[in-house]
Amino acid sequence: MTQTKCRVAIVGSTGYGGVELIRLLLQHPHVEITSVISSSSSGVPIADGYPHLNQIMMENLDGVDVAEMKEKADVVFTATPSGVSAKLAPQLLEAGLKVIDLSGDFRLKSPDVYSKWYKKEPAAQAYLDEAVYGLAEVFGAEVPGKPFISNPGCYPTATLLGLIPAVEAGWIDPATIIIDAKSGVSGAGRGLGLSVHYAEINENLAPYKLNKHQHIPEIEQTLGRIAGRDVAVTFSTHLTPMTRGILSTMYATVQGTHTEEDFIKLYREYYEGRRFVRIRDKGKWPATKEVWGSNYCDIGFAVDERTGRVTILSVIDNLMKGAAGQAVQNLNLMLGWDEGAGLAFTPVYP
Amino acid sequence: MTQTKCRVAIVGSTGYGGVELIRLLLQHPHVEITSVISSSSSGVPIADGYPHLNQIMMENLDGVDVAEMKEKADVVFTATPSGVSAKLAPQLLEAGLKVIDLSGDFRLKSPDVYSKWYKKEPAAQAYLDEAVYGLAEVFGAEVPGKPFISNPGCYPTATLLGLIPAVEAGWIDPATIIIDAKSGVSGAGRGLGLSVHYAEINENLAPYKLNKHQHIPEIEQTLGRIAGRDVAVTFSTHLTPMTRGILSTMYATVQGTHTEEDFIKLYREYYEGRRFVRIRDKGKWPATKEVWGSNYCDIGFAVDERTGRVTILSVIDNLMKGAAGQAVQNLNLMLGWDEGAGLAFTPVYP
Amino acid sequence: MTQTKCRVAIVGSTGYGGVELIRLLLQHPHVEITSVISSSSSGVPIADGYPHLNQIMMENLDGVDVAEMKEKADVVFTATPSGVSAKLAPQLLEAGLKVIDLSGDFRLKSPDVYSKWYKKEPAAQAYLDEAVYGLAEVFGAEVPGKPFISNPGCYPTATLLGLIPAVEAGWIDPATIIIDAKSGVSGAGRGLGLSVHYAEINENLAPYKLNKHQHIPEIEQTLGRIAGRDVAVTFSTHLTPMTRGILSTMYATVQGTHTEEDFIKLYREYYEGRRFVRIRDKGKWPATKEVWGSNYCDIGFAVDERTGRVTILSVIDNLMKGAAGQAVQNLNLMLGWDEGAGLAFTPVYP
Amino acid sequence: MTQTKCRVAIVGSTGYGGVELIRLLLQHPHVEITSVISSSSSGVPIADGYPHLNQIMMENLDGVDVAEMKEKADVVFTATPSGVSAKLAPQLLEAGLKVIDLSGDFRLKSPDVYSKWYKKEPAAQAYLDEAVYGLAEVFGAEVPGKPFISNPGCYPTATLLGLIPAVEAGWIDPATIIIDAKSGVSGAGRGLGLSVHYAEINENLAPYKLNKHQHIPEIEQTLGRIAGRDVAVTFSTHLTPMTRGILSTMYATVQGTHTEEDFIKLYREYYEGRRFVRIRDKGKWPATKEVWGSNYCDIGFAVDERTGRVTILSVIDNLMKGAAGQAVQNLNLMLGWDEGAGLAFTPVYP
Repeated sequence: MTQTKCRVAIVGSTGYGGVELIRLLLQHPHVEITSVISSSSSGVPIADGYPHLNQIMMENLDGVDVAEMKEKADVVFTATPSGVSAKLAPQLLEAGLKVIDLSGDFRLKSPDVYSKWYKKEPAAQAYLDEAVYGLAEVFGAEVPGKPFISNPGCYPTATLLGLIPAVEAGWIDPATIIIDAKSGVSGAGRGLGLSVHYAEINENLAPYKLNKHQHIPEIEQTLGRIAGRDVAVTFSTHLTPMTRGILSTMYATVQGTHTEEDFIKLYREYYEGRRFVRIRDKGKWPATKEVWGSNYCDIGFAVDERTGRVTILSVIDNLMKGAAGQAVQNLNLMLGWDEGAGLAFTPVYP
Repeated sequence: MTQTKCRVAIVGSTGYGGVELIRLLLQHPHVEITSVISSSSSGVPIADGYPHLNQIMMENLDGVDVAEMKEKADVVFTATPSGVSAKLAPQLLEAGLKVIDLSGDFRLKSPDVYSKWYKKEPAAQAYLDEAVYGLAEVFGAEVPGKPFISNPGCYPTATLLGLIPAVEAGWIDPATIIIDAKSGVSGAGRGLGLSVHYAEINENLAPYKLNKHQHIPEIEQTLGRIAGRDVAVTFSTHLTPMTRGILSTMYATVQGTHTEEDFIKLYREYYEGRRFVRIRDKGKWPATKEVWGSNYCDIGFAVDERTGRVTILSVIDNLMKGAAGQAVQNLNLMLGWDEGAGLAFTPVYP
Repeated sequence: MTQTKCRVAIVGSTGYGGVELIRLLLQHPHVEITSVISSSSSGVPIADGYPHLNQIMMENLDGVDVAEMKEKADVVFTATPSGVSAKLAPQLLEAGLKVIDLSGDFRLKSPDVYSKWYKKEPAAQAYLDEAVYGLAEVFGAEVPGKPFISNPGCYPTATLLGLIPAVEAGWIDPATIIIDAKSGVSGAGRGLGLSVHYAEINENLAPYKLNKHQHIPEIEQTLGRIAGRDVAVTFSTHLTPMTRGILSTMYATVQGTHTEEDFIKLYREYYEGRRFVRIRDKGKWPATKEVWGSNYCDIGFAVDERTGRVTILSVIDNLMKGAAGQAVQNLNLMLGWDEGAGLAFTPVYP
Repeated sequence: MTQTKCRVAIVGSTGYGGVELIRLLLQHPHVEITSVISSSSSGVPIADGYPHLNQIMMENLDGVDVAEMKEKADVVFTATPSGVSAKLAPQLLEAGLKVIDLSGDFRLKSPDVYSKWYKKEPAAQAYLDEAVYGLAEVFGAEVPGKPFISNPGCYPTATLLGLIPAVEAGWIDPATIIIDAKSGVSGAGRGLGLSVHYAEINENLAPYKLNKHQHIPEIEQTLGRIAGRDVAVTFSTHLTPMTRGILSTMYATVQGTHTEEDFIKLYREYYEGRRFVRIRDKGKWPATKEVWGSNYCDIGFAVDERTGRVTILSVIDNLMKGAAGQAVQNLNLMLGWDEGAGLAFTPVYP
């Protein structure tokens, strides 16, 4: 192949999102990883902290140095904790690098809303405006050629892909949306804490951050954009004793008369041609394991005529479609490659 | 102690509910287990199939024989699959035995509703009428002295204890109730099946029986009785990769202005003096592990002023408060003993 | 009952061993917990950090104060990290308290050996000499009336109960003993660390501390005492994705001709009358779940005539027979109560 | 690419080994899957039973029909239960097809030994003789151009790769080898059973088939071939509460004086150029998760000078290097492709 490979740097390589990006990009046909970066562990081999990378990636971690990134890379993925990218991404953009940001720092268009929910200093408005919200199957058309993509959060990805077609069609009342989301533990990252201590969360199911999760404004901003008016949702999150997977169970009152078959048809048409969204047949509902390790989002429906509500089920692998997988999908769209390049992972089952 | 012990027989001893009854009754101060019964394995020692009972219970399993039960026991627990008790319990009652039924056969007062949801032949109306629905903290006053108790289902127990005080007070609109329930795998019993095969459900979260679970009419019948009018709920169930535990996350629109503190106060007053229901402080939500192996039901709240909804969280151990534990509680109430006799289990943590 | 209850204090109440002691002692017929103590969290309710104790134990944690313990208690359990008891236990003994120590500080009789394996300063020789090693089924006869018991480690308990009858009988060659031990994650305690971070150890099996575990000298000291000569063992430990349970798989060359039946008979005679050791029938091997939540140690055998070796399998719940359960058993022996008082827990299954 | 793809059929496509072959071969650069075959489910879409394959593989399952396979395929993978391939593989070979067999039917060269351990009728001696035992890193040189490969068992793969270099070098005494193996539950396949029922094996560690596992003669036959004399091993297997992964912990007496560094050097030289075996540095031991979803076998060592023994640790993913991965590796070797074609999977972590 004579094509020059795109040179990629990954900031936050020692987090779970970063290490998943490495797994994906190592076998991407058009990409070469030229720098793995960690603010805390620079100078040591990444395989020291992640022995599964032995003999696969033996490079030392680089420190966070914009000039060095400019030297080594064309595109930078920033898989940093929130609050870090707000400052770093603008510098990378100013240096002429393309940036795909996996933190939450550029998803909300309003700095005030960001401050309220993230309790961090927001990025400058200009950059918030510039960032394209990369929910690939919905806003993917805005991505090609753009230098700066804000990758959606894990819960919003599962939730929005499950809600948007129905909201856009006016089939559900946005004021009635209730989202009961469940996540595997890897969503909390590699940082230590009692809530993700094995003996505490194994054989346990724990609700957390009810109505307070920072992904709420991201969901509401996007639904509002689709609905053309303000939307407020009830949103619950639960930690589930598994490593990967998000299931978002969503409830809403149906407007008009629409059967399960109608919903299936509506969604299949909406996602026509988008290979990573799979709509289940009538009476079949997706389980998280059926997308494990892959970039798929699987969606199913149950319409209850007794109550006039639809239940929508949406599952993803939180580290794939909910983070690194969709980020690679955005890279593909950004650079005009096939949307699925380097993402042809069949779910690992069992 | 000179008190004669109550002689107890357990039909369905080789199911998970039955074997949990054995664990509890073995150390109950007023009870002696005189017969462990299994239709499929009679004649062999129960410890053959449950080696954890070695040197604890070495008895052979008896067959299902009403006359023999009459000979050996005062009270019979029927922990059978649905459809079996419908026929057996009336025979036991006719023989003069007291019966606590853990199957679903006597929970619904309408044989038609039973037939529709259970797809089995219903019990005779007279016995449906006679059975006291033993949701101990709500209807416990009806239990003393009665010969026939129908023990509530696992999902209904968690759900109803979480909803009833608010419904009774008129603080939530029954028409808006949505129940997102999650259960550990032991709720499916010891019967083999692909959905409970280890490699299929480990690291997996799977919705099932949406709007079709046979516990729905039980919840609706009871809420209707409290509300004084028909109630229809949206009810979703999910299989979670853990052995024990149910978390019911419930949503409803608040009627009037009631804060989280108000709900806490209301529920604490409602459950005053009932030791097995614990209401969490403001901002604290229960996790399933916090009641593991015990008879507690822990309840917490989140009121969202933005949407006018309350989220109610209720957790139980499905084999304890959701089955055997509440059955023993009903035995205690039936015979006039202390409600908590033989149930002083601190949750096993971690 | 007119008997005055024994007043008990627990140092290290916020560790897993401490909180398990609380669970056991709360329902012990002869004991009253009068002080729960934590060096790090004194002044706050223990239920703050352990919500499963809500409405069960609402006391505030006390600080570590010898005079206060003397005031409040007759017996002190020290469930502290190693290095702490070495200093504290002597003070408690000097104050006239009885002490049951769950740390490793008094198990090894040689301060030099302790220093080498624990990398901590050893206790004074006089106290090392005074401490009775409380492996209840083997050395229990030494416990009654003694003020100071050193409770065995979790791995040594499973391992020694599995090896001692055969070593004492001369049926296996001590020089050939190889121990492959596996533990649930709770054995590592509540302290945070990457090796016990949920996403790292779930769906994982990880060897650690090969030939370096601090329980090795405890095993060798005890086997040496039984064999009457120095014994060195090969000892491997593995972290298993479960919360509780130890399985010790032990290999040794058989001396003389002894069948599986012979081993079963030998062990049943050795443990005659000791209810907490259960020897399995021929061809049956114990699994960890069969003792979960109980004080049992279950043992099974496989003799391989092709290689002349015996494989001995021994399982315990590491927090029960491997820590708090055996500590209560030692309390019972120390004070002349029935060995099983407060320990009649049937294993929780499933 | 103008190369014609190799057409592949998979018999036993609905087992875990078969479905893993599908995952691998779907993205193999030189292969096209032309038939997925199941004796029990022919005529229905494979995605019906495996929803993770929705929109990935929508083909109906074919029945077992040699003529049809001859029509459709060049190479057949037989991932059948033992006893089936013994009859089927010879027919396929006679029809001129190439066969890679994942059952155990052609691993043992002696029909008598096969009958004794597998309790099935053995294949004809001529086919046992013809089958090349495809332990790729050891006997891979025998594979190219051969029509019939017998793929090694999961336990033997982990065990033999861990033992062979030391046995061949004469560094360990074959008569002292003890193998303590632990496996995830997927190794037992998709067939239902109480031992792999979720509630029974979750939070459990269960020994099984001690000294009786049918993989013992395969290990002994191969070690005997390397050592040049009969070898008998002690071999224990344990079921571990995880889906994938095998850890084989092996013990042997060191002959001569060899340090940990010596073993590391010996093994690195032995496996020089074989990318799928990774030897850990001194003091580092592999965990199963570090090879999860990949074709790697990671090996580490601990030499204990006190006892003169070496402990060798070897981990694989049982469905990859222990089954489908190595089968694809053998396909690559058979047809002269790069050994790693289609196998460039970085382990999925976490």
